[in-house]
Amino acid sequence: MISVLHLGLGAIGKATIEALLAQGKSVRVVGAVDLNPLNVGHPLAAILRRSDAPEVTVAGSIADALKWAGKRQPSVATVTTCSRTEELRPVAQELIDAGIHVVSSCEELAWPTLRAPRIAAALNRRAKAKGVALLGTGVNPGFAMDAFALACTAPCTSVRHIKIIRSLDASKRRYQLQKKIGAGMTVTEVKRLIRTGQIGHVGLQESVAMIAAGLGWKLDAIQEKFDPVVADHRVQSEFFQIEPGRVRGMWMRAAGIVAGKKRIDLDLFMAFDADTFDEVIIDGDPNLLVRTKSGFPGESATIGLLANCVRVMPTLQPGLRTMLDVLRVRGVGA
Amino acid sequence: MISVLHLGLGAIGKATIEALLAQGKSVRVVGAVDLNPLNVGHPLAAILRRSDAPEVTVAGSIADALKWAGKRQPSVATVTTCSRTEELRPVAQELIDAGIHVVSSCEELAWPTLRAPRIAAALNRRAKAKGVALLGTGVNPGFAMDAFALACTAPCTSVRHIKIIRSLDASKRRYQLQKKIGAGMTVTEVKRLIRTGQIGHVGLQESVAMIAAGLGWKLDAIQEKFDPVVADHRVQSEFFQIEPGRVRGMWMRAAGIVAGKKRIDLDLFMAFDADTFDEVIIDGDPNLLVRTKSGFPGESATIGLLANCVRVMPTLQPGLRTMLDVLRVRGVGA
Repeated sequence: MISVLHLGLGAIGKATIEALLAQGKSVRVVGAVDLNPLNVGHPLAAILRRSDAPEVTVAGSIADALKWAGKRQPSVATVTTCSRTEELRPVAQELIDAGIHVVSSCEELAWPTLRAPRIAAALNRRAKAKGVALLGTGVNPGFAMDAFALACTAPCTSVRHIKIIRSLDASKRRYQLQKKIGAGMTVTEVKRLIRTGQIGHVGLQESVAMIAAGLGWKLDAIQEKFDPVVADHRVQSEFFQIEPGRVRGMWMRAAGIVAGKKRIDLDLFMAFDADTFDEVIIDGDPNLLVRTKSGFPGESATIGLLANCVRVMPTLQPGLRTMLDVLRVRGVGA
Repeated sequence: MISVLHLGLGAIGKATIEALLAQGKSVRVVGAVDLNPLNVGHPLAAILRRSDAPEVTVAGSIADALKWAGKRQPSVATVTTCSRTEELRPVAQELIDAGIHVVSSCEELAWPTLRAPRIAAALNRRAKAKGVALLGTGVNPGFAMDAFALACTAPCTSVRHIKIIRSLDASKRRYQLQKKIGAGMTVTEVKRLIRTGQIGHVGLQESVAMIAAGLGWKLDAIQEKFDPVVADHRVQSEFFQIEPGRVRGMWMRAAGIVAGKKRIDLDLFMAFDADTFDEVIIDGDPNLLVRTKSGFPGESATIGLLANCVRVMPTLQPGLRTMLDVLRVRGVGA
């Protein structure tokens, strides 16, 4: 049985605990940490509204959670508190120093050497010294547009080009996602927010970097391009009503350039009324086309990956790990 | 760089060496063993008809191959000589004793505890003692109907039922496969051969066992059922011309029963003029449907998996391993 400490009681965090509880006897939740003072000191059962939740009082710090856990010390921590490696750093350090494996939905941690190489190196050294593993996972980055696509190349003796399309109907998703793709805004406004990097999905560049490393390609450059998608008729969700001419979503593309050639193409289409699917198109030996009908659903797939990686953590080599260490076989880039 | 010794110079074996040569600098072939006296003593280049093949003389035994390799001793062996664990045993023992990791397309080795539990236990002990890993892989069993399907469950917090369909047009495949599905025979003849276990695909039961272990299910029983598929019009291939009323292929099903319930359904349809695709249908949280258009192609996918697993072997824990150790994250069975 693996004892788990969970950090972060937002929507994803609470659902992660639910997923851990659903795993039966292989996993138990022995602690929970949240910064929200409304949660601290309260029983987990009350916060989850589940009378069968484990007897855990939400702590305001890791130190308190470990103290309150008594003899049931955690060996793995699940962290759903942030998107940036820099924000994760202090929490990860404290957990590593306590000898606890860390798995997090932090988007940048999927491939942390890209945006935070120094922090990544420091965390790697620290985790190795303490004999624990640190892993970033989630549906995207972490699976749909990188690790899963690489697993699809496992039967290929050679890969010349890989294209991954992820398309989803944003009107069915939570408010935060609808907002981050510019739903209901004007084109001008969205273009300005794109230019200043205040809008759009974080993770495409991480996915390009992971794919290149997985296939043994040395990247010259990663190109990224975000464009607003404009409604030509009225579309709506629970949160937004979008008139024709306004933005109904975003089309985000990223490419990986290897020795002057475009080898990796990622195509992420998130818009109201878009089709929902994932597709991996491999130009290689053999060619392959793998399509996930209805797609890997955003939040719930991230929660599933986090919860399922908990059982993998104790089997990983110590240090900073990636999903390449979890889904380990793939083709070779031409 | 990983130095590889290859055993078995049949069609799959030769193609495996070609695939290893295509991997560039990460892998080099330092030896080859074959039992066919027409091959022994000849240069690999002549057998592959490739002037750029490595300077390797085909040996008739592992001992000779290791002697002839000189300072370039292999760390991994690829073995494409047999389908049964019992047949593989002496070869695997000799390689393990020489401290060489072994990866093989031997079908039963995909889940060897099913049909050869004692040999599996002995090989496991021996490999652990010598610090090397032993792995069975291939497209089926080993990937399409088990390990890949399990990787598709990675985003699921719960799996209630999994169905995997593999359908392929046998008329496009090699002679041996067309023969093993009864092409051109009478229904009576095929039914007799099915009853005596002399015909059909080996591996469905291995796949059921792997899936159950992967999802944490304890199997009550594995059910298997093979039925001939009859032509209603004339169909043909390079090797067979099949008249109406004769057998054009086989429909092979296997099921895994857990606590009295059917939780795993495998459906393998190999017939002339059949559609070619692979499909994974997950009844879980969330539900998922993943379809590989045109399927994972038989021989070439097996070759790709073997060649790609070579790079994984040195990273595995010593002992008898399975594809569950290679593609490591998956959902939990309900």
